[in-house]
Amino acid sequence: MDVKKVIQQMTLEEKAGICSGSDFWHTKAVERLGIPQMMVSDGPHGLRKQDLESDHLGINESIKAVCFPAGCATAASFDRDLLYSMGQALGNECQAEGVAVILGPAVNIKRSPLCGRNFEYYSEDPYLATEIAASHIKGVQSKNVGTSIKHFLANNQEHRRMSSSSEVDERTLRELYLAAFEGAIKEAKPWTVMCAYNRINGVYAAENKTYLTDVLRDEWGYEGMIISDWGAVNNRVADLAAGLDLEMPSSSGLTDKMIVEAVQNGTLDEAVLDKAVENILNVVERFESNRDTEAVFDRDADHALARKVAQECIVLLKNEDVLPLKTEESVAIIGEFAKAPRYQGGGSSHINSHKVESVWEILMECDSCKDKVYFAQGYSTKEDIIDEKKIAQAVELAKQTDKAVLFAGLPDSYESEGFDRSHMKMPEGQNALIEAVAEANPNTIVVLHNGSPVEMPWADKVSGIIEAYLGGQAIGGAVADVLYGKVNPSGHLAESFPIKLEDNPSYLYYHGEGDRVEYREGVFAGYRYYDTKKMEVRFPFGHGLSYTAFVYSNVKLSEDSIRDTDSLEVSVDVTNTGDRAGKEVVQLYVAPPKDGRIIRPVHELKGFEKVFLEPGETKTVTFTLSKRAFAYYETKINDWHVETGKYTIELGQSSRKILAECEVQVESTRRLPLNINLDTLFGDIQKIPGTEKILEPFIKIFTEFDMGGDDKLGSSTKEMMESMLRDLPLRGLVSFVQGKVSYQQLYDLMEQLNYLLFKIG
Amino acid sequence: MDVKKVIQQMTLEEKAGICSGSDFWHTKAVERLGIPQMMVSDGPHGLRKQDLESDHLGINESIKAVCFPAGCATAASFDRDLLYSMGQALGNECQAEGVAVILGPAVNIKRSPLCGRNFEYYSEDPYLATEIAASHIKGVQSKNVGTSIKHFLANNQEHRRMSSSSEVDERTLRELYLAAFEGAIKEAKPWTVMCAYNRINGVYAAENKTYLTDVLRDEWGYEGMIISDWGAVNNRVADLAAGLDLEMPSSSGLTDKMIVEAVQNGTLDEAVLDKAVENILNVVERFESNRDTEAVFDRDADHALARKVAQECIVLLKNEDVLPLKTEESVAIIGEFAKAPRYQGGGSSHINSHKVESVWEILMECDSCKDKVYFAQGYSTKEDIIDEKKIAQAVELAKQTDKAVLFAGLPDSYESEGFDRSHMKMPEGQNALIEAVAEANPNTIVVLHNGSPVEMPWADKVSGIIEAYLGGQAIGGAVADVLYGKVNPSGHLAESFPIKLEDNPSYLYYHGEGDRVEYREGVFAGYRYYDTKKMEVRFPFGHGLSYTAFVYSNVKLSEDSIRDTDSLEVSVDVTNTGDRAGKEVVQLYVAPPKDGRIIRPVHELKGFEKVFLEPGETKTVTFTLSKRAFAYYETKINDWHVETGKYTIELGQSSRKILAECEVQVESTRRLPLNINLDTLFGDIQKIPGTEKILEPFIKIFTEFDMGGDDKLGSSTKEMMESMLRDLPLRGLVSFVQGKVSYQQLYDLMEQLNYLLFKIG
Repeated sequence: MDVKKVIQQMTLEEKAGICSGSDFWHTKAVERLGIPQMMVSDGPHGLRKQDLESDHLGINESIKAVCFPAGCATAASFDRDLLYSMGQALGNECQAEGVAVILGPAVNIKRSPLCGRNFEYYSEDPYLATEIAASHIKGVQSKNVGTSIKHFLANNQEHRRMSSSSEVDERTLRELYLAAFEGAIKEAKPWTVMCAYNRINGVYAAENKTYLTDVLRDEWGYEGMIISDWGAVNNRVADLAAGLDLEMPSSSGLTDKMIVEAVQNGTLDEAVLDKAVENILNVVERFESNRDTEAVFDRDADHALARKVAQECIVLLKNEDVLPLKTEESVAIIGEFAKAPRYQGGGSSHINSHKVESVWEILMECDSCKDKVYFAQGYSTKEDIIDEKKIAQAVELAKQTDKAVLFAGLPDSYESEGFDRSHMKMPEGQNALIEAVAEANPNTIVVLHNGSPVEMPWADKVSGIIEAYLGGQAIGGAVADVLYGKVNPSGHLAESFPIKLEDNPSYLYYHGEGDRVEYREGVFAGYRYYDTKKMEVRFPFGHGLSYTAFVYSNVKLSEDSIRDTDSLEVSVDVTNTGDRAGKEVVQLYVAPPKDGRIIRPVHELKGFEKVFLEPGETKTVTFTLSKRAFAYYETKINDWHVETGKYTIELGQSSRKILAECEVQVESTRRLPLNINLDTLFGDIQKIPGTEKILEPFIKIFTEFDMGGDDKLGSSTKEMMESMLRDLPLRGLVSFVQGKVSYQQLYDLMEQLNYLLFKIG
Repeated sequence: MDVKKVIQQMTLEEKAGICSGSDFWHTKAVERLGIPQMMVSDGPHGLRKQDLESDHLGINESIKAVCFPAGCATAASFDRDLLYSMGQALGNECQAEGVAVILGPAVNIKRSPLCGRNFEYYSEDPYLATEIAASHIKGVQSKNVGTSIKHFLANNQEHRRMSSSSEVDERTLRELYLAAFEGAIKEAKPWTVMCAYNRINGVYAAENKTYLTDVLRDEWGYEGMIISDWGAVNNRVADLAAGLDLEMPSSSGLTDKMIVEAVQNGTLDEAVLDKAVENILNVVERFESNRDTEAVFDRDADHALARKVAQECIVLLKNEDVLPLKTEESVAIIGEFAKAPRYQGGGSSHINSHKVESVWEILMECDSCKDKVYFAQGYSTKEDIIDEKKIAQAVELAKQTDKAVLFAGLPDSYESEGFDRSHMKMPEGQNALIEAVAEANPNTIVVLHNGSPVEMPWADKVSGIIEAYLGGQAIGGAVADVLYGKVNPSGHLAESFPIKLEDNPSYLYYHGEGDRVEYREGVFAGYRYYDTKKMEVRFPFGHGLSYTAFVYSNVKLSEDSIRDTDSLEVSVDVTNTGDRAGKEVVQLYVAPPKDGRIIRPVHELKGFEKVFLEPGETKTVTFTLSKRAFAYYETKINDWHVETGKYTIELGQSSRKILAECEVQVESTRRLPLNINLDTLFGDIQKIPGTEKILEPFIKIFTEFDMGGDDKLGSSTKEMMESMLRDLPLRGLVSFVQGKVSYQQLYDLMEQLNYLLFKIG
């Protein structure tokens, strides 16, 4: 199909019609021109393809599919290749099922642990989120199937999600909320981008020209299709003009008519419509002309892959010499989740799994363990109570075994798309169970299934904690592998675990008032806040233990000093000093100059590499940093800017465990605009090279008058006088040094200074 | 002098001339019309009257005067009568010295412990600040001498104070930064208000018509004179038009000429000038026509009062059965401050004290103690080092005595007007000394002299801590009185003591970037932040121990339920259950409804009373609360508003030690405006009584379609669907319930709903 030619042959009505769905999951066909329907399907951690007879809300039963670990888990892998493989599998499934676009990945920043959809999202850090997303997208699209990175933009809560306005300053948007999209969009070029339900600074995402067109298309060069979240269109014609191509689902023709009228009465330029149609048909064409007719949806093979992915995602949070389990040990397996794991969240990403393996099933299949493990239910997710009888049974069992492994976390009803949590606690019945079991057996390990951090009042009382997240349908096997040491855990937290909800940076303002949600914490999301405020956390961002140990040495920089247009190579040798093979996630953080003028987090993640090491083996891990690694977004110039100064490169195992660091001087190649006026401070002018001579006579006038003082003002006089001059606006000379300086003298001075600035550029 | 008549006789030049000073401390005289000069003088905790031959910056030696405790201390008294007495003494001193206006009090909110001028300010809480200020003002003005409440507005740092812009949202300004002024201005009617150096949301305080005229004069009915801080004028004509009457100090005639020209060329209405002159001359006239020619500045009598004031301000922070000291005990008195107390801060408030009494001098005059106390210097404020030799001497002494009292705190160079602190630490030499002495003697008591909170890493290692603040020239005697129990301490903290600087709510943004200082913490200053975020603090707001104990009982409300236009009486019986007379500060906090829609602190101080009780005595303390105690500032209506709901009245000894509480239902008498449109959510409409019927058919359409779903979406389906309807905008029906609802139906629905709203008002 030659898209441009086809568009020339389409009627106005046909073109308007293409811009919204024919039903819940399909675009419209135009048979006379050979334009086929295109099917899209929810994702992104499995295929939620609904039967043809789908209901209006799209929540009817979908085909049996394979549920991979959710975003909360896959981000914890810190493994780009893994995400690529998972993406390939999903792309292949789509080819087999004739699905052109699998919706996702979702990269929204985890602003609060309460967000109901956090389990689908990757991280509180935009660099990690966008890197993981890019790998996922590239994997899927390598199979000629599209993705839809979502939800663009600043959609960080479910509460009032169709009307709330995220009030975010531009720098924060750029450094966090846009950045999570930016890298993946530029690098992986997703076929589609999905706009969110909410407003950004008052303007609906769907009609937000600033971000849909100015940033996404003009600045980032995005050439794909922009699609609405289901029902996110609020003003079809304005949305189209702002850059939204495809409305989903169908509006039963209502909005198609609006588009036709708008073109006919001249309020909408037909060229805008043509461009949207082109963007949509390009996707249709791209899928159609690259069909893989051989593709087969091999559910068992993909299940095996899901287990492998889950193995890489599991995070060992705490281990006081209690893990891995030995097959000769007797183990109490406690908790309903051991038999019925919570492995995915509710809402549009929900997969109709073709099978689910629990850890208990897997252990029962293991000849060396099955006779040494015993089960107690501990709690029921059906009731939110403290079940003393079940707890007593679990305690009794735990007393008689060498170790106790307790499966706990959040029931389905606690977290889902559509609503946010109101607290960060686990069910009190589970907390009581953990306390009781830990009391009964000092070797208690808790395995958690949850999509977002929980408070762990019992954390100091248990010997081991494993974060298994919502790990997909094969999570049972993966957990068993980690518990018994068949797999050495290598996941690291993609989010901070605060001690209590109130610690979260957005806590005071999270849901906003009515529809107005202020992001007052600004750039200080997640560890940017906890680390800068030196707060205790339960587990820091990037944290994850291993059954072996790693040592860093020989940190090297390619240069000690660079210009902001240069790139810098950082390398470090990592050695596995333990007796077991394992994978280390080397994290690179950049800390801004200590004397910087800009308010910035103490450090930010700017690189990570996952490296496999045999016992005793050493590998050199190398990172390349460019301007962006040192830059902040400067609204004065609407661009990224690097403050000249000494930056610290930190290499470590978490944001709180830095094992090596070194410094690099970075020189800015761009001067920020400065115009000197009557309100400009002496101190600010003094910082500009070459101004000493020009200022000298004025400073003399000030300080000579100053000499009149004696010591009666207290010994702080000197400090006070120094700061007084530093903070004095030029105009201050007129009133402070009465009668000695005229405004005309100040005007002459300003002219001299501004000429100097003009000369030095 | 008939001011209005005099103005009619003045020339334009004379009128312009009156609007700026003749030198640093005087207004201009107009001899031909009998207008005398008027002298103003720095304050407010003593008279800083400079000799006639004052230098240009006004920092030369001033007359010998009496230094009372600084604002940081007097606020801790929580004692209105005490501030009134101190004000009377200052007013009398001014009459004796011919000073018409004593500049102060300063009510700026303590946004950060770093602010260099915190020692002059009262509190982090606006109610406490404004109540204390009102008493001070009324005391001074009872002597027919003026005050100048300052620095209006949002001047909460010294860093770049002449150019920085405090970026504060309107609600925060109203609830905190304006509120600190509002009560005192309305109730005590200070003769003058001093505008600050800084900008508020970009506009200099001196030319800020919104606050100088619209709020101060039009809303609050202020009729006094508005004066510039010294050198705060930046654009004389604009400032005058905005409401600034008097520029200080002299501009050597420069700005007078500008005013004349502006009137002549028509850019300034002469009536504006006339009004400013009238405001200024009213003050001149008020002072001149009420001179107390008998007044005598009795320095010794005022010194005695200064000691009495200081006694009430001292806060006993910690006491593990170590205080009061007994005269039979041997005591090591350690620290340079014991012989040379730091008793005031640097800058414009600095008093040339006629005498200073140290605690050591007082003890040497005490026959029963003098032979049992021994001195070691411990450190020198001259050098910021760890002086191992002096520490060793102090430790040696402490080992040989029953108890050790260590005087410590901040040297002059650490805090002053003109610059902010860069950290919250004490000198490391003093910290090391305290650790060493506490190690040597378990009965170690630290007495602190400082104008703002300090970090106390040693707090858990000492047995007693006394906060003596900058307690004025008689602080030595007052501290001795408290140490030996002649005075039972009754001061309470007017500010929170965080554990570390990073805990402060403004920490991340305090100094801003360049001149832009964002108040991102909003209404969450001080305990409003710490208590709402449930953070550990070193000592909470309102904290202060006594040598006796108090019990609260019999809390009563005049009504269980009120309308927001009613007032409410709250009473509580307070009993002294100890064996020593003492004073209790009963604090009343109001907590908003738990289900409120507005983001608010968990509670706010809305009343306090200091009550003296003999051992065993009970008194009933009564508070009257009106609308403002329950209200927040609603920007939608530009007015204070009360959300209907159940408010909790908390009575306690600190913000963290609530001893009694009860609930009251408050009904709003005003509905906030609401207009229903396509973006309005079903859930919001459902909350309005009377809408059930109108909505019914639409909800039926939604839920009936919903029934098509099965359980495959996970068990959260029900919660998700409920929240989906609640958060659905009306327009959402068109796309979600495809083809079943038309826009016309929605328009009809909106018309019905808006008519209903109109009817219920």
